[in-house]
Amino acid sequence: MKRSEIGKAQERAAAMLKSSGIALTEQEITHIEVAGFGLGELDVQGLELITYVNTDRYCAKELVLFPRQTCPEHLHPTIGSAPGKMETFRCRSGSVFLYVEGEAATSIKSIVPPGSEPYYTVYHEIELLPGEQYTIEPGIKHWFQAGNLGAIVSEFSSTSRDEFDIFTDPRIVRMPIVTEDE
Amino acid sequence: MKRSEIGKAQERAAAMLKSSGIALTEQEITHIEVAGFGLGELDVQGLELITYVNTDRYCAKELVLFPRQTCPEHLHPTIGSAPGKMETFRCRSGSVFLYVEGEAATSIKSIVPPGSEPYYTVYHEIELLPGEQYTIEPGIKHWFQAGNLGAIVSEFSSTSRDEFDIFTDPRIVRMPIVTEDE
Repeated sequence: MKRSEIGKAQERAAAMLKSSGIALTEQEITHIEVAGFGLGELDVQGLELITYVNTDRYCAKELVLFPRQTCPEHLHPTIGSAPGKMETFRCRSGSVFLYVEGEAATSIKSIVPPGSEPYYTVYHEIELLPGEQYTIEPGIKHWFQAGNLGAIVSEFSSTSRDEFDIFTDPRIVRMPIVTEDE
Repeated sequence: MKRSEIGKAQERAAAMLKSSGIALTEQEITHIEVAGFGLGELDVQGLELITYVNTDRYCAKELVLFPRQTCPEHLHPTIGSAPGKMETFRCRSGSVFLYVEGEAATSIKSIVPPGSEPYYTVYHEIELLPGEQYTIEPGIKHWFQAGNLGAIVSEFSSTSRDEFDIFTDPRIVRMPIVTEDE
């Protein structure tokens, strides 16, 4: 992703956080992570995040999703003898539709990213409004999309090791590749 | 603590959370934990909290402190082979003065609760404003007091086992005893 695109997404995420009353330090604002997953369509499939803390015991992040932005389907595998990451999503503002393994909804409230349909395979739907939360057990495939107003979601979890995440879409590159603007 | 006092403190905490833009479900509001520590002076020494999630891997809470309210000095011990609780405090609104083991401040910005001076022994001061955070290592004595506007603090931590907390003040009873109003 180009550095200018990252900067724009950081500004947009910072503005959403500010208008939701979530305080960040200047240092945190300049380090907002912008994950485009190597797909080149950040507004459709992407995620902005701030990792507050990630120790060998627990992790906490703030996730920001632009309106209808989708975090692609993935799971957190067992790593050696350590069980996969367990995570609790708590909606702070906006709304988010979360999909996990289990009985599929007959019709879903999200729009599956066009052209990526084969890589979205789980359809048990959970809608989270502000103050609502859901815990995803380790090893469970999941994806999520913000509603029309976007979403801010606190993630409380066991230790985060993003580089081990397994995405359904083989085109995905989780760790960012930044290119300078020409 | 009398049920009516608990109810009043829950309402006050809920109002503070609401005005800070932190959304709770109705169920969460009615279950706000009010900890008076058996000392009978909730506004001076006490804490209001909501446990969002507490699994065998991680825990997340929202802590509410009324103006100048103090959480008394304590530590989280090793339990069997499990290291003591590690916790990260992130100030969301207001301000909080946190005291941990280490070089003592020459003068502190808090008021030690009158009559309880012998039970406050650590004075390394950290002031947290909105967006600022601090991680307390396991086994470290700590206490904290809100500034003049109170404080809302997100606590991210390893598993919480409050019943094992060791308080410096031997008069303290951590787990609540509720008495009905007459």
